[in-house]
Amino acid sequence: MPDNTSAQHRQALATRLGAERVSWDDGTLAEHSRDYWSLSALRRMQGRQDNRPLCVVTPENTAQVSTLLEYANTQRIPVVPFGAGSGVCGAVLPDSRSIVVDLRGMNRILELNENSLYVRVQAGMMGGVFEAELNKAKYSARHFPQSIDVSTVGGWVATRAAGQYSTRYGNIEDILLGVEGVLPDGRIVSTRLGVRSAAGPDLRHVFLGAEGTMGIITEVTLRLVPLPETTVGYSFSFASMDAGLEAIRKIMRDGWRPPVVRLYDAIEAARLFPDVSDTTNALLLLLSEGPRGMTDAEVAGCSAICTENGGTSTGAGPVERWSHERNHVPGFDKFLERGLVLDTIEVASTWDRVGAMYREVVAAMQNVPGTLIASGHSSHSYAQGTNIYFTFVAKPEDPAGGEATYLACWAAAMEATLRCGGTIAHHHGIGRLRRDWMKEELGSSLEMLRALKRAIDPNGIMNPGVLIPD
Amino acid sequence: MPDNTSAQHRQALATRLGAERVSWDDGTLAEHSRDYWSLSALRRMQGRQDNRPLCVVTPENTAQVSTLLEYANTQRIPVVPFGAGSGVCGAVLPDSRSIVVDLRGMNRILELNENSLYVRVQAGMMGGVFEAELNKAKYSARHFPQSIDVSTVGGWVATRAAGQYSTRYGNIEDILLGVEGVLPDGRIVSTRLGVRSAAGPDLRHVFLGAEGTMGIITEVTLRLVPLPETTVGYSFSFASMDAGLEAIRKIMRDGWRPPVVRLYDAIEAARLFPDVSDTTNALLLLLSEGPRGMTDAEVAGCSAICTENGGTSTGAGPVERWSHERNHVPGFDKFLERGLVLDTIEVASTWDRVGAMYREVVAAMQNVPGTLIASGHSSHSYAQGTNIYFTFVAKPEDPAGGEATYLACWAAAMEATLRCGGTIAHHHGIGRLRRDWMKEELGSSLEMLRALKRAIDPNGIMNPGVLIPD
Repeated sequence: MPDNTSAQHRQALATRLGAERVSWDDGTLAEHSRDYWSLSALRRMQGRQDNRPLCVVTPENTAQVSTLLEYANTQRIPVVPFGAGSGVCGAVLPDSRSIVVDLRGMNRILELNENSLYVRVQAGMMGGVFEAELNKAKYSARHFPQSIDVSTVGGWVATRAAGQYSTRYGNIEDILLGVEGVLPDGRIVSTRLGVRSAAGPDLRHVFLGAEGTMGIITEVTLRLVPLPETTVGYSFSFASMDAGLEAIRKIMRDGWRPPVVRLYDAIEAARLFPDVSDTTNALLLLLSEGPRGMTDAEVAGCSAICTENGGTSTGAGPVERWSHERNHVPGFDKFLERGLVLDTIEVASTWDRVGAMYREVVAAMQNVPGTLIASGHSSHSYAQGTNIYFTFVAKPEDPAGGEATYLACWAAAMEATLRCGGTIAHHHGIGRLRRDWMKEELGSSLEMLRALKRAIDPNGIMNPGVLIPD
Repeated sequence: MPDNTSAQHRQALATRLGAERVSWDDGTLAEHSRDYWSLSALRRMQGRQDNRPLCVVTPENTAQVSTLLEYANTQRIPVVPFGAGSGVCGAVLPDSRSIVVDLRGMNRILELNENSLYVRVQAGMMGGVFEAELNKAKYSARHFPQSIDVSTVGGWVATRAAGQYSTRYGNIEDILLGVEGVLPDGRIVSTRLGVRSAAGPDLRHVFLGAEGTMGIITEVTLRLVPLPETTVGYSFSFASMDAGLEAIRKIMRDGWRPPVVRLYDAIEAARLFPDVSDTTNALLLLLSEGPRGMTDAEVAGCSAICTENGGTSTGAGPVERWSHERNHVPGFDKFLERGLVLDTIEVASTWDRVGAMYREVVAAMQNVPGTLIASGHSSHSYAQGTNIYFTFVAKPEDPAGGEATYLACWAAAMEATLRCGGTIAHHHGIGRLRRDWMKEELGSSLEMLRALKRAIDPNGIMNPGVLIPD
């Protein structure tokens, strides 16, 4: 695209939205040229420049989002929605023709309904600020992704986020009651606030998990929970990951739903909780909360199952320690500077397959030349199965081979997961990183996703290159 | 369509599927010309004949469903999927060009996974037979629509059904883990069995609640629950519907989830439970189940809230009585023969609006000339709100005016519901009966439903006239 056309587009947007809403200075473009993908950090470390977008638009209301999408659609300009840029799968990588839409100017709570326990909030509000506002009124969304301080509420919906308290309170699809968004042609659409309805297909799902490929989320309505009366942390040590997984399975089977259920393998337990773990034992952290009678019954029920399944109580200490450090997101740079490549990979499977999946994924990553650490923990459980959140750290022999090593670890994990019948993404989304495995992930149902995309975004302007394989 | 073309289509289908799979005798056509819509019964009573379809196809496997849809799509023949015909909103009303697809030949359990608590079953299995098979293995789907003995598992998904134990176990969208279906062009699609996944939009929702407008559901995977260790029924009388609703709201707010939570207004309580109710009190039925510790805590927690909110215990008797009679579906005919028209109407709203909605809908139906009874109960509760399941009985002055009176009662209820911010359908679906109110129900989001329909069924062969307003 010749520069004068770029200039014309910038000017046209400034005319329509106000000059203060359209930026193309170097600093702003650089800040919006990537998300928190480990591979982007590695490439920068190796001196490779990110693409800079055409411009960054910062709307302050839904009408402006509509105006800019209508323009972009008419002009066939790619549009990349941007929350707080903390995605880890490369869902934000604009090219030089793209408009990046930073939604953080739309950051207000619009309605807090105490009687019916919901809150309407603009999509660009930061998660931590949002939760703090709710807490002031003695409420909580009970949605605690580790990224809560570096992500937006709209980003949670776009990526199908999961929080650390999901085992009781559900994932974002369970917490989301309604959504307002703008379709690529500029139409503003809003789903009815759903208590529950049998009025056709649930249209929230056009936006939920679409990673910006179907339009832009401008407002969400989320479930609230009153702050709990009591909270109890407790933990158990198990001789093996399999023994701990079996205890969780039985807890779920009996219908208990402690908000926090986290089982660390021996490597992670020894690293994170050295006071209670050596390098041979898996460690299970549990947290129950609610009215006292509910909490007491749940602690008793879950503790009995753990003991019956060979667990040894390790007290409240590990849960307190985890609570204190749970939102610490480590930076990649200090590892990359030492020639290490690393990432986390969250997948999920049914109970009958998850033990084998855990072992096979760890083994597959360890088989990649240069791998130093391959470990995992379970952190989101269901009656049917659980996730495993893997971590790998590798040091390629030749520092220039970092990208190849990184991609080899990912390929090893994805292929082992699919071989074991697991899903390739529990809650980080697909982005560009996992897109090539979506054919196997979705199988025959990929055609429905493609049909939906063609119907909603016939010109293909919304976040091209993400989620949906060619 | 000339008869020779009809004959050609029947012959073509018989050739492709086997003659034993295609029927057009009078009896079979008559059985498949309607569902359980009260208005269809009234019209028959008045001597108006239902349309007869072109033929009825009874596939025994998914490949045959694919073959017939591919043929119908090529020939532009309307297709009406048929479960057990117990829908109550007129979603089955074929015209003389239509192929009705009766799925009850696809009725086998394909996999029961005890470890991971799921069951794969063909869509045409009858609900009661399915649940009985699970019970033999000490499991349950915990999905108990009143229609369980006269509906299919695929029908539950197509209509977004709710069961009587939904307050703990959720509605069919919470119970459905995966779906196989056939798109209108014959493509067979299958979603991954979802523990939970962040791999794009949740494609189960293309079929969930689509009432046959997007394709034909051929197989579903549903959650299982082990049969509970303990069950406790208990009940409370309240001075008013509002007082009972407030008690339920507080139960939900504290996080208790008794499977059964049913609040009858004074009219229904006096009719159904005359031993504990007079005509002035609302009656709340509760049922808790699970491990003993969980049940004990829940009964204590819920009972305390009821007492604090003015409830008086009425013991286990009403719950036992309800349990005994809960699947009795009354026939319309004996009422119609007496010149009465009647129906049930289930809607839902948030807690802050549901009391007003209950009163306004009852008043609106009572205002229709000829109305004898207008009453309601709440039977599916959530932290954000609840449903109200209304009943009306009316006797038009002129017996020939039955249809007008019937439609006037429905219009009064729908308009009052929308005025109070409720959703027009909690769990019976839309069909033809409520289709005209879908514009107001969905508002701006209707365009997404239309786009989805065009994308999935561009020739419009799937159950035309249902769900989606013109």
